[in-house]
Amino acid sequence: MNRYIALINEALAGLELPAEPSRLYDPIRYTLSGGGKRLRPTLTLLTCDALGGNIDHAMPAALAIEVFHNFTLLHDDVMDRADVRRHRPTVWRRWDENVAILSGDAMLTFATTLLAKAPARHLPELLSLFNTTAMEIYEGQQWDMDFELRDDVSVDEYINMIRLKTSVLLGCACKAGAIVADADSDLAGRFYSMAVDLGLAFQLQDDYLDCWGDPDTFGKAIGGDIECGKKTFLLINALQRDPSLAHVVGGNAPDKVATVTARYEQLGVKDLARNEINRYSLQALDTLNTLNLAPDFHHRFERLITALISRDS
Amino acid sequence: MNRYIALINEALAGLELPAEPSRLYDPIRYTLSGGGKRLRPTLTLLTCDALGGNIDHAMPAALAIEVFHNFTLLHDDVMDRADVRRHRPTVWRRWDENVAILSGDAMLTFATTLLAKAPARHLPELLSLFNTTAMEIYEGQQWDMDFELRDDVSVDEYINMIRLKTSVLLGCACKAGAIVADADSDLAGRFYSMAVDLGLAFQLQDDYLDCWGDPDTFGKAIGGDIECGKKTFLLINALQRDPSLAHVVGGNAPDKVATVTARYEQLGVKDLARNEINRYSLQALDTLNTLNLAPDFHHRFERLITALISRDS
Repeated sequence: MNRYIALINEALAGLELPAEPSRLYDPIRYTLSGGGKRLRPTLTLLTCDALGGNIDHAMPAALAIEVFHNFTLLHDDVMDRADVRRHRPTVWRRWDENVAILSGDAMLTFATTLLAKAPARHLPELLSLFNTTAMEIYEGQQWDMDFELRDDVSVDEYINMIRLKTSVLLGCACKAGAIVADADSDLAGRFYSMAVDLGLAFQLQDDYLDCWGDPDTFGKAIGGDIECGKKTFLLINALQRDPSLAHVVGGNAPDKVATVTARYEQLGVKDLARNEINRYSLQALDTLNTLNLAPDFHHRFERLITALISRDS
Repeated sequence: MNRYIALINEALAGLELPAEPSRLYDPIRYTLSGGGKRLRPTLTLLTCDALGGNIDHAMPAALAIEVFHNFTLLHDDVMDRADVRRHRPTVWRRWDENVAILSGDAMLTFATTLLAKAPARHLPELLSLFNTTAMEIYEGQQWDMDFELRDDVSVDEYINMIRLKTSVLLGCACKAGAIVADADSDLAGRFYSMAVDLGLAFQLQDDYLDCWGDPDTFGKAIGGDIECGKKTFLLINALQRDPSLAHVVGGNAPDKVATVTARYEQLGVKDLARNEINRYSLQALDTLNTLNLAPDFHHRFERLITALISRDS
């Protein structure tokens, strides 16, 4: 996996953007140089490689998806008024909102420009996948914002929201690698499903770690979701079991995080989350077993799925 | 020309967007139903038709360019804090900023989705043209915002900014029609040049009408650029001739618009603008003469160029 990440970082560093106007292009360089796990482009290269494709041909889609992902973070940070991203000020905080809006737009177009370098015979299918996925991600972000204003969000609605906002891009990343490796649509579809389930497990793990993660390694403050009353899988389920918890979450008691976390455990919501995380990751592993990959690649996907959902940071 | 506009409006009305999430898709429907001259898609269909191409094949590019144009207006209105667009509240005023950012993003992706319906053999070239043009337009918008903070903007810098912000999309619209009609790159390039010159004349005419337009037909209040000290072709040239004008423009005298307009006339800036408008439109007409179009199409382009620069609204 490290070889893919090195190739991706090398390719990202080699992308040429004009120097001027600097307030348009500097924020793009800043965002792309901020690191990150490079999970999505790794999935694209790994899938292509596992299917015997040429990973050079998968690189345009891999880079497009990574740049697109970073564009969504940039605009989400404006919408969410987030101050910090990867231990640095967000673009709208470091520059201003207009710079963040416009440089984000330019990143989205830049992502499409990178995708357009894919082999011409794959371009229509890749572009269709990319555009469909992008629209789903905007839908997920809009539902997420809508849910902040609602008190009646169901678990199904929440799962659908995180599927759109987070998981489909992992599905897209795998499927793009499969397309470039000339996989048929059934096989490409199974890679897609596997990655979507992985994404759901990953996002639910994120909700879980907000309560029970290791404060030294999680990267964010523990209990941040509880502090701001975010409607996570945990809170939605807990409120269904005990509506009175809304008062605690809505209040400002100094021990709010500890109180709510303890109630989650009493109400069985911690176990429920653990079960759902395991269920989605087992589903991903089941799909993996249908792919008949060479052992080396099979194990790499297996380790990826296991590592992401058992991570504590 | 009315036939093209009717076809475009019919195609726009037939575009299918999901109902939900409504705060993502309603602003797109709102924006696309707001009317407008449909100049850009008309240029695409007219160029394709003039070259004997099938205008049905040009429609995806025409719609993509119109949707893209409306996306730029939507995001520009956020950045410029504009309250009104086409006699209606702008999206960020009618909904909010987050809705405007995200639905704008979705419009940009939607534009690419429409473009992807172009004939596959033209797709790589159309996509490359579209993406290059989009990046230039963001550069133009960034320069425009940068110029607001600077006092030393030269006339050349200003012309380059309006070329990027306004003209290249007209060039793109014509060139896309030429590509779909299988024009060679020299011919497509001449259509592009003609439209860029037309765009420069058009934008300078906009600056001109802000001072000397007919208040009953211009649509905006006369003198709006002077009121807010916008660095137009007129002001940049006037300041070069008389730097003391900066105090009048920066002040709040009740007769500011009348005073500055009179100074523009005394300083010869009104005539200079008129000359530049004529020069760019004559350049466009010269290029038109090299295209050897059938008389009917030649005259339609000629009337378009003449009408746009002699308009008083």
